[in-house]
Amino acid sequence: MLVHDEEERIGFRQDAAVVVRGGRIDAVTSADAVTGLAAAERIDARGQVALPGLINCHTHAPMAALRGLAEDLPTEEWFNEVVWPVEANLTERDVTLGARLACAEMIRAGVTCFADHYFAMDAVAAVVAECGMRALLGEAYFSSQGARGRQRSLEFALAHRGAAGGRITTALAPHAPYTVTDADLAATAGLARAHGLPVHLHAAENRDQTDASLARHGVTPIEVLDRTGILGADVLIAHGTGITERDLPVLARAVGRVAVATAPRGYLKFAWPTTTPVRALREIGVPVGLATDGAASNNSLDVWESMALTALIQKSTEGDPRWLTARQALHHATLQSARAVGLGGTVGSIAPGRRADLILVDLTGPHTRPVHDLAATLVHSARSSDVRTTIVEGRVLMRDRELLTLDVPGTVAELERRLPALTDRGHGRRVQTYDT
Amino acid sequence: MLVHDEEERIGFRQDAAVVVRGGRIDAVTSADAVTGLAAAERIDARGQVALPGLINCHTHAPMAALRGLAEDLPTEEWFNEVVWPVEANLTERDVTLGARLACAEMIRAGVTCFADHYFAMDAVAAVVAECGMRALLGEAYFSSQGARGRQRSLEFALAHRGAAGGRITTALAPHAPYTVTDADLAATAGLARAHGLPVHLHAAENRDQTDASLARHGVTPIEVLDRTGILGADVLIAHGTGITERDLPVLARAVGRVAVATAPRGYLKFAWPTTTPVRALREIGVPVGLATDGAASNNSLDVWESMALTALIQKSTEGDPRWLTARQALHHATLQSARAVGLGGTVGSIAPGRRADLILVDLTGPHTRPVHDLAATLVHSARSSDVRTTIVEGRVLMRDRELLTLDVPGTVAELERRLPALTDRGHGRRVQTYDT
Repeated sequence: MLVHDEEERIGFRQDAAVVVRGGRIDAVTSADAVTGLAAAERIDARGQVALPGLINCHTHAPMAALRGLAEDLPTEEWFNEVVWPVEANLTERDVTLGARLACAEMIRAGVTCFADHYFAMDAVAAVVAECGMRALLGEAYFSSQGARGRQRSLEFALAHRGAAGGRITTALAPHAPYTVTDADLAATAGLARAHGLPVHLHAAENRDQTDASLARHGVTPIEVLDRTGILGADVLIAHGTGITERDLPVLARAVGRVAVATAPRGYLKFAWPTTTPVRALREIGVPVGLATDGAASNNSLDVWESMALTALIQKSTEGDPRWLTARQALHHATLQSARAVGLGGTVGSIAPGRRADLILVDLTGPHTRPVHDLAATLVHSARSSDVRTTIVEGRVLMRDRELLTLDVPGTVAELERRLPALTDRGHGRRVQTYDT
Repeated sequence: MLVHDEEERIGFRQDAAVVVRGGRIDAVTSADAVTGLAAAERIDARGQVALPGLINCHTHAPMAALRGLAEDLPTEEWFNEVVWPVEANLTERDVTLGARLACAEMIRAGVTCFADHYFAMDAVAAVVAECGMRALLGEAYFSSQGARGRQRSLEFALAHRGAAGGRITTALAPHAPYTVTDADLAATAGLARAHGLPVHLHAAENRDQTDASLARHGVTPIEVLDRTGILGADVLIAHGTGITERDLPVLARAVGRVAVATAPRGYLKFAWPTTTPVRALREIGVPVGLATDGAASNNSLDVWESMALTALIQKSTEGDPRWLTARQALHHATLQSARAVGLGGTVGSIAPGRRADLILVDLTGPHTRPVHDLAATLVHSARSSDVRTTIVEGRVLMRDRELLTLDVPGTVAELERRLPALTDRGHGRRVQTYDT
């Protein structure tokens, strides 16, 4: 079982047992100690490793419906020619079905919690309630929607905060500094402080956005967040591959809790010139959580792959094979991801008092043998398909790879019937225009 | 079913059937056409896609025993402090067990053929014979072994050529220009021509090696291959991330069939500054096959991952999201990999007359739905764990994920008992010293 010591170092406890009561971890003890214990349910996980459930710190779950629709394109064409025209067709039912598909994929990949940023989020909240996952949800808005967008984002956050027995937390969700005006960001910052809500948004996604912001406004996207007061709230920044040297002191002195979500697969696929500066962020104490972004760009919601890729790409980018060890990758996957979604005291480690969000990973396959270094086995040899069991709040959502709360064939069948209408671009409209 | 047209473009045929007879593809037809056909065995693959079996174009299969033993280290320490000292302990039994584990992993990942470069290769040949895979095998040698090494590499190649009913082909296997003298390379080139054998070796693995070769000898590693006559034979070059601009005309005018194997995961993990120059090699007509290298550096033998990473890293390195599309990645995984291992006319596509090396991939999982673009689904959403069935020469080696020719628990149990002796570094010896 993966454990964190008092200095948050990753360790592994052999022959461990976890006692869960009322959705919480009641005790972490030895297998021997629970032999005679009365229990409503007992899961034998011999040959498996228990980990905290993975957290997808930035995604757009319903975009699973668009997986593979916009391939091998630069960012601007991806948005303007495919994704934003298609999203002009989006119905609440499409969102429901896309979210169900995404949650099925995530539960099968050992993801117990996700931070979602999309439209028609009432539908996503309903899917979270039905499938049993945990989520940080935010209704996205552009300033092009007028004041209504910002208002709906607030209404959603207030209406759903604490829903699904507390499994749902909420955020205000302006899209990004290049699609939301400074005035709207400032108003959102005020609402965040007034209502004690975090802000989840895209910022400095890539270097082009930073360069364009500097050319047009003389400030970086991070400096925009600072001057509009967003950094006075708790804020989750998606991507940040365009974070520059001059942004670091700005982030370091932020009053609110700042975190960044990294989804490295998409940066490679879009051929962005940089990745999230994980090492620089670590030096200023900003947690970096793991993410996949939406499946329309990332093609999967496989956070396990994001963990391995983060280790590999960080080594490569820093030119340092000793950096971002397997244990560091597991720290990003556990406590740093929990902090990124505002649940640093609630999930992210297997310890008494934490919510029982756990996964069991089978390491008996030939690809994970022998085990010379368990952290390396997990990060670099195991795959999301080795997750056998996924548990949220003590409830089993997948047992021996069988999903217990979602109907995949039914969801796929209905979604596929809707795809022609959803993907039609004949109308020539789009929900927004990408112009950094 | 994946098919290649006359210009080798990748396409997909719906409702297809493959008729296999005597280990060969007899016909490619429609499911309807085979309904009444008498057959010894019939595999219903509805909801699945048939692909040519994947080919691991460069690995060291027995190093599966060392998976995770040397983590987060620079190349030189990886070799000198861990791998080469440990290999001083290597016994033939270790090689047998490591190769069995590796073959089990590869068959489960849809790999039907591998190019292996290691020691005690008689043992690997025996494992290939027993497990049913196809392989290009070469007994590795260093010049530090004296003339005996080169001689044993030849003896192995001649003794095992055409073994296992033709499933085994062989190569001469000098380790690399930095561990084998020009005289030994020249002698090997002569033996290759005399006996009609290909050469499989490491060359220009990384930029440091190219720089060191230039500083010491005034020529690049590729120029060493040229001047020693190696490029007059058919040659499979592992890695080539240190191939430079000046090497391209040298490779372009090579008399022999030259191919390069790319294993991008390890280049990231070692933080090498470059990757295999796939685009430049394509421009001069050099096929690039997919590979994993050994599990001691790559942590897995997952060629499916190599396919996805090749697409992603090539896009990123070239700064071009339109380059190395999913279809190009599938071309590398099929015909280019077959050519790289000298089997371009034998395997690598599903067509009458080819050997029946096939895999069936299940695309019903939520992570592979919906399918807007089947090539993208395969490369970017599917995983090696979606391979349900692996067939070599018409023989089923894995059915519904159950291995039929190898005993994983028995192999792992015996291997684990041997690990203390295998990994002991107290003796202070090593099989070779890394000094580019």
